Amino acid sequence: MSGPVQPVRFGRVAVVGAGLIGGSVARRLHAGGVDVVVVDPDAATRTAAAAAGLAVAGAVPADRDLVVVATPLDALPAVLADAAAAAPGAVVVDVGSVKVAASWAARRAGLGGRYVGAHPMAGTERSGFAHSYADLLVGVRWAVARGTGPVADVVRFVVGAFGATAVVVDADEHDRAVALVSHAPHVLANALLELVERADEPTAAHLAAGSFRDGTRVAGRHAVRTRNMLADNADALGGVLDDLLAVLGDYRRELTEPAALADRLQRVVDAAARVRRPEADWRPCTDLDAVLAGPGPVLLRGGADGLEWAPA
Amino acid sequence: MSGPVQPVRFGRVAVVGAGLIGGSVARRLHAGGVDVVVVDPDAATRTAAAAAGLAVAGAVPADRDLVVVATPLDALPAVLADAAAAAPGAVVVDVGSVKVAASWAARRAGLGGRYVGAHPMAGTERSGFAHSYADLLVGVRWAVARGTGPVADVVRFVVGAFGATAVVVDADEHDRAVALVSHAPHVLANALLELVERADEPTAAHLAAGSFRDGTRVAGRHAVRTRNMLADNADALGGVLDDLLAVLGDYRRELTEPAALADRLQRVVDAAARVRRPEADWRPCTDLDAVLAGPGPVLLRGGADGLEWAPA
Repeated sequence: MSGPVQPVRFGRVAVVGAGLIGGSVARRLHAGGVDVVVVDPDAATRTAAAAAGLAVAGAVPADRDLVVVATPLDALPAVLADAAAAAPGAVVVDVGSVKVAASWAARRAGLGGRYVGAHPMAGTERSGFAHSYADLLVGVRWAVARGTGPVADVVRFVVGAFGATAVVVDADEHDRAVALVSHAPHVLANALLELVERADEPTAAHLAAGSFRDGTRVAGRHAVRTRNMLADNADALGGVLDDLLAVLGDYRRELTEPAALADRLQRVVDAAARVRRPEADWRPCTDLDAVLAGPGPVLLRGGADGLEWAPA
Repeated sequence: MSGPVQPVRFGRVAVVGAGLIGGSVARRLHAGGVDVVVVDPDAATRTAAAAAGLAVAGAVPADRDLVVVATPLDALPAVLADAAAAAPGAVVVDVGSVKVAASWAARRAGLGGRYVGAHPMAGTERSGFAHSYADLLVGVRWAVARGTGPVADVVRFVVGAFGATAVVVDADEHDRAVALVSHAPHVLANALLELVERADEPTAAHLAAGSFRDGTRVAGRHAVRTRNMLADNADALGGVLDDLLAVLGDYRRELTEPAALADRLQRVVDAAARVRRPEADWRPCTDLDAVLAGPGPVLLRGGADGLEWAPA
């Protein structure tokens, strides 16, 4: 997945915030020959980025045509406003894990039609520039929030520069979807680890095997980062947790109703393949603007003869 | 982990039920040169076992000194009674995932002091003899229920024949521990998959990445096998699900109390290493009977100079 970066509209990029995600964005663009500058308030991070061969700066240079913001949500309003002022011709993309709150921040920062929200669906248990690498975000799904700014250019950018499959979706639908498939799994993993820690069962940890290891892989890491991710998406995640509490209450009751429990588990078996490997009906994309103007979420990826798209 | 089987008391073994677990037990013993006979009611399974080089029989031969029962819990009373009658000199071990109900079945089958409950902490998403393999249960933790039968001989057997770390524990403590570290993760994984399937969010499955994949790995497989595992341990698992519902309710409330949420997540971070890699204070085991007679759960494993033990 380390092929060359395809030509895209953006040739002069700044990455603000060189942690795990921003660092990986910068490394990938740099490796692909793109003119990229790293902006980070932390001197040690700037030193590490420079040591990795990246250009660094204290502020976004005025000549940038794309600014990728990879800072926590609470820093976003100020960072977006600074970027808007520093690089008046730039498109500004943020890559955080919630998109409704980010779009509000962009509006408050006066970015208007220059802002697009994006979200690469990858990460590791680690954080910080030291753990970033050029291929982390390559070949994965990138959500791109529709409705504001030059969405088509950003789609071409993530497909071209990262070999992404872009999932173009409304911001509120994005937030509900990641509450389900990312934030809720983080809550469950942490809750399970907490329960084993609190239980007065000395052999529980000794008997833990694959289902516990996998079910808790993302738990017990970076309390503040996880807190931010969950709390920033409190509205959508709250609804998902309500649904989870109801389903777990069903399981609790059905422990003594084996027929109902078997029926429930069989429905999950029947649905599993579709959920794990959702199908998509790919077709050539000859008019990206028209595809993006249609209703409903769409997928986009690079094919042998250019862009391909599919309804989600 | 494919070293030779160490000499143990049991030289003539029958394995009843050649699914994933029983098949793997039989393959391992056969590969280690142990005289092992597979007993399975299913003709196709017997044919497959014979094709894999295993001896097969329609009933437990009378000359066996160990019978390993690897059938579902609902078949256990009849299978244990048959085994007890067929091989009057044999120790009988079952390898199912709940131990209190299994010990009741053994008592009803009249096995008395010839029965020991065991539980290898390994498995795969797959089931059936075709997916069994000699190394599946090698080098993993084996719970061994204390209190009935020749526990010391069974400990030597699983350590010697499987390179196991034996976790010797009361049956009720075993059932509570596996409810926490195995059965609850299965419930959460299935609940999460069910929620995504039911949600009317077409992009959720497309945006799923590592946390969802790992958090649902064991979900949507073998409805009846999973139902049996959960329902057979309904008492212990019910208590764990009650605790989980309470913790998830706390998360739900703390989505809008960021300081409390961060504190909670930090406590999980602080506990994570201890839960993931529990320490053990290993020492030479010169008198296994004395170690097993002591209070509390103990760990046992093979060391360079013979058995080693540690308090759990």
